[in-house]
Amino acid sequence: MKCFRAVHERGRFLFEFEVVAKDSGSSARRGRFITPHGPVETPCFMPVGTKGTVKGMLPAQLEEAGAQVVLANAYHLSLRPGADRVSALGGLHDFMGWDGPILTDSGGFQVFSLSGLRSVDDRGVVFRNHLDGSLYKLTPEISMADQALLGADIIMALDECPPSVAGKDEIEKSLGRTSAWLKRCVAAKKRDDQALFGIVQGGLDLKLRTRHAKEVAGLDLPGYAIGGLSVGEDKAALYEVAGVTAAALPEDKPRYLMGVGTPKDLVTCIGLGIDLFDCVLPTRTGRTGRLYHEMGYLNIRNAVFAEDARPIDENCNCPACRNFTRAYLRHLYMNNEMLGPILGTLHNLYFYLDLAAQARNAIEAGDFRDFATRMSNIS
Amino acid sequence: MKCFRAVHERGRFLFEFEVVAKDSGSSARRGRFITPHGPVETPCFMPVGTKGTVKGMLPAQLEEAGAQVVLANAYHLSLRPGADRVSALGGLHDFMGWDGPILTDSGGFQVFSLSGLRSVDDRGVVFRNHLDGSLYKLTPEISMADQALLGADIIMALDECPPSVAGKDEIEKSLGRTSAWLKRCVAAKKRDDQALFGIVQGGLDLKLRTRHAKEVAGLDLPGYAIGGLSVGEDKAALYEVAGVTAAALPEDKPRYLMGVGTPKDLVTCIGLGIDLFDCVLPTRTGRTGRLYHEMGYLNIRNAVFAEDARPIDENCNCPACRNFTRAYLRHLYMNNEMLGPILGTLHNLYFYLDLAAQARNAIEAGDFRDFATRMSNIS
Repeated sequence: MKCFRAVHERGRFLFEFEVVAKDSGSSARRGRFITPHGPVETPCFMPVGTKGTVKGMLPAQLEEAGAQVVLANAYHLSLRPGADRVSALGGLHDFMGWDGPILTDSGGFQVFSLSGLRSVDDRGVVFRNHLDGSLYKLTPEISMADQALLGADIIMALDECPPSVAGKDEIEKSLGRTSAWLKRCVAAKKRDDQALFGIVQGGLDLKLRTRHAKEVAGLDLPGYAIGGLSVGEDKAALYEVAGVTAAALPEDKPRYLMGVGTPKDLVTCIGLGIDLFDCVLPTRTGRTGRLYHEMGYLNIRNAVFAEDARPIDENCNCPACRNFTRAYLRHLYMNNEMLGPILGTLHNLYFYLDLAAQARNAIEAGDFRDFATRMSNIS
Repeated sequence: MKCFRAVHERGRFLFEFEVVAKDSGSSARRGRFITPHGPVETPCFMPVGTKGTVKGMLPAQLEEAGAQVVLANAYHLSLRPGADRVSALGGLHDFMGWDGPILTDSGGFQVFSLSGLRSVDDRGVVFRNHLDGSLYKLTPEISMADQALLGADIIMALDECPPSVAGKDEIEKSLGRTSAWLKRCVAAKKRDDQALFGIVQGGLDLKLRTRHAKEVAGLDLPGYAIGGLSVGEDKAALYEVAGVTAAALPEDKPRYLMGVGTPKDLVTCIGLGIDLFDCVLPTRTGRTGRLYHEMGYLNIRNAVFAEDARPIDENCNCPACRNFTRAYLRHLYMNNEMLGPILGTLHNLYFYLDLAAQARNAIEAGDFRDFATRMSNIS
């Protein structure tokens, strides 16, 4: 365990969050969150390693790319290989060979989106898992127990994720349940070296979002997440809800916008005061050959790249851009060669991680507005 | 271009082969073959990168694993992306980002095994390619032109590969054609910085093999290959033919046993005087989860490894064994996570490359017999 300063108080890890600099023209802030596996400089993008592996990436490659935190999913890992098994093997850090901070999502979202739901009531969720259809139960207590076994630095509360088409009454009822579950998560949390983040829901209703944000913040947790966005709503709604919810959350705690988003979403939402992001987009599109750069992206399979001797992005310092041409990358993708998705994923992660680093530098230097303007053509 | 000593004579690259040490109890020898992209210490195993990429491996990872030469296939690359296109992009070394020696196979074997053969006569082969069924022609002259465009350090003659069930008459006829094609390859060869290797055929007939070896060696080429083996014959036949053919080839030129084989095949055939090997086995089995070690191999998907906290092989220094447990590797394979095949390929390549390195050391130290005995349980 790396310790950078006095981070414990009476044996309890403090999970201190410090705002290092604030932008004058927006709500953007430059912060630092201390975890048992090291500090996280914010704003920060967290690569997604659902099953305990960021697809195709060695941990050393993630580190070289500048990844600070890796996200995994407690739902997937509890099904396979099992949280007890991961624990017996030394916990998730040892299991996946990543010594930096890890965040586990409870998997509530995946239970509601992937599984065959059997019943949801105040006690919890019963569902048929998406792997073999057998019946599983998830409750706040089970989620906390599983996430304690996995041993991530940041763990997420179990929340109910109503469908995006839910009406106001349904959302209100769901918020009540999410709040009740959160309190049970707080009570059931087992380890002092894990930070439990609460999740604010409320659909696209600004009043409900604000009310729920205050309610969740009332529990004085080490960080807060905004859930239930980037599920099909338009960008204006996403930004409005993210901004209003962020503003309703405490200044002195990190704010995590779950499952968001595009490069443009990151730049925009950093300006709204978001500190943490995760999204499968860079890794998923990296595997299919959508490769990002500041002017948008390339679909590298396009025939126009067949003889293009340039790198994906002249300004990028990733292993794909340092060593290979667009023509070679296209050849790899067209032939379903594994090295294509590997290099594409590496490039896209470098792009996202570098974008966050540029945002941090811009906020510190006091020119976040210029940065955001310069990035206005980003995709 | 790296130059290690006086390797040119009147502008012509010499492709010098030097036998550094010989085993007293077998035909094993420790040699060095000088190419325009550096020396190759033999015995040497060459990882297979058919389409200009060793599946899932970055060139830097191959180098770290100890790979000296990478093999690619002129047939596959001429179909896609096209030899002219690779040439326009700077040649195969630049294209695939590998600065070390490269060997291209002519692809004769693949034409005869993968494609829809249309006609074979003394002029060459007409076939429907395996990608889109369109008609292609391959002649010795076309092969030499394509391999010149690709620009590998070692290029292979176009040979006819009769089916393994061919009768003696058919094999005799085929040998005549292979010899005629080889002479045309010698005449059509375009670049002085490429070494053309001839290929000895002859099925399992020792007399035909010996006769053809002498015939091919009569052309005084910089190296010789033994083709048409490891196509279904039993191990005794493989070793007998390889040994007799190797003995019929000149002492002062490298001998390359094409497409062979298992770890046991390598140890055995090094003892028969073979210097160069290539095989898809370590990379292909690495992708499916058959992971080698000195006592045989693990099928890592086996449930017995679900909680096994040991590395694949305690004595292995590869990135998979240094950082991950069998349990984690099994988890990756069971979930079809890309990192499984990546780590499995890395491990198996380390194993093969280390096996060749151990053989080199043993021959130099004069205890190759002990090494071969120690390896007698290898798979």
